Amino acid sequence: MTQAPKTELFHTVTEEVLEQLRTLLHAQGHGALATLSPEDGFPQATRIALAFTPDHVPVSLVSMLAVHTPALRNDPRCSLMVGEVGRGDPLAHKRAMIRCKAVFISREDPRYDNIRALYLHHQPKAKLYVDLGDFSFVALEPIDIRLNGGFGKAYQLTGDQLTGRAPI
Amino acid sequence: MTQAPKTELFHTVTEEVLEQLRTLLHAQGHGALATLSPEDGFPQATRIALAFTPDHVPVSLVSMLAVHTPALRNDPRCSLMVGEVGRGDPLAHKRAMIRCKAVFISREDPRYDNIRALYLHHQPKAKLYVDLGDFSFVALEPIDIRLNGGFGKAYQLTGDQLTGRAPI
Repeated sequence: MTQAPKTELFHTVTEEVLEQLRTLLHAQGHGALATLSPEDGFPQATRIALAFTPDHVPVSLVSMLAVHTPALRNDPRCSLMVGEVGRGDPLAHKRAMIRCKAVFISREDPRYDNIRALYLHHQPKAKLYVDLGDFSFVALEPIDIRLNGGFGKAYQLTGDQLTGRAPI
Repeated sequence: MTQAPKTELFHTVTEEVLEQLRTLLHAQGHGALATLSPEDGFPQATRIALAFTPDHVPVSLVSMLAVHTPALRNDPRCSLMVGEVGRGDPLAHKRAMIRCKAVFISREDPRYDNIRALYLHHQPKAKLYVDLGDFSFVALEPIDIRLNGGFGKAYQLTGDQLTGRAPI
């Protein structure tokens, strides 16, 4: 039952790996979000719909009726898991976990119009409720990312590497 | 921007709703798990492979190399989100969030052999690693469930209602 030290678990990140990650993210219109319950700190897993900005920041449109929204208003720490499962072992399929800080985008924010247009381009059905009072846009600013490309193929990147603000 | 009080959000649970929930769960071989980082309490979202016991308790086989395993050993509170996304708005598709308490099943546990057989029946590819030292079975004992059947169709159930230990 020997276990490798944690630092040995991750493969070297290359430009190709970064491209794989970005392709994986932009192919997805939804993800699983982990947040903390404002009542008792219990971890919560919920579905959110997604779009990605040109610099690869996940954006969602969230309802106050969903458990993640008051959770993010209370504590902006969250993790987003993205990736599809196909045939065979569910763990053999690629997924990324992005640890994020949630930043709500108010209607007065200069970024609001761009984010609204980007989001509706990727989630056209959201036109039905985007302007209702209990919906808000939230950007999930990436802190770090674990890309899991199947057994034994794990990579770790910083949020700045994902967005292109830092080299790999 | 008026908002309905929380108690009005949920529809009445019937036997049919319970059956819908059980069908949704058993159709799935994987889910998204929210756990708490042992280092800093950050919420984490990861993929796990799943099987369900005859009384509808989710069971997974987890590796010490995955971030959820040390997290659950440190704090057994977790939430499991289960459900597939199809065409159109990702939020229009059914999903359930189960808040759970994780219970590790040791090799000496009288339930071990049954759980191993059940799991391998549903996840045959796991035969390749089920007996490796860093893998453990964990049962996710359900505390409560929020079933989301699409916009405006939310239900709340107790874990005992899911398992059949309590009436609806």
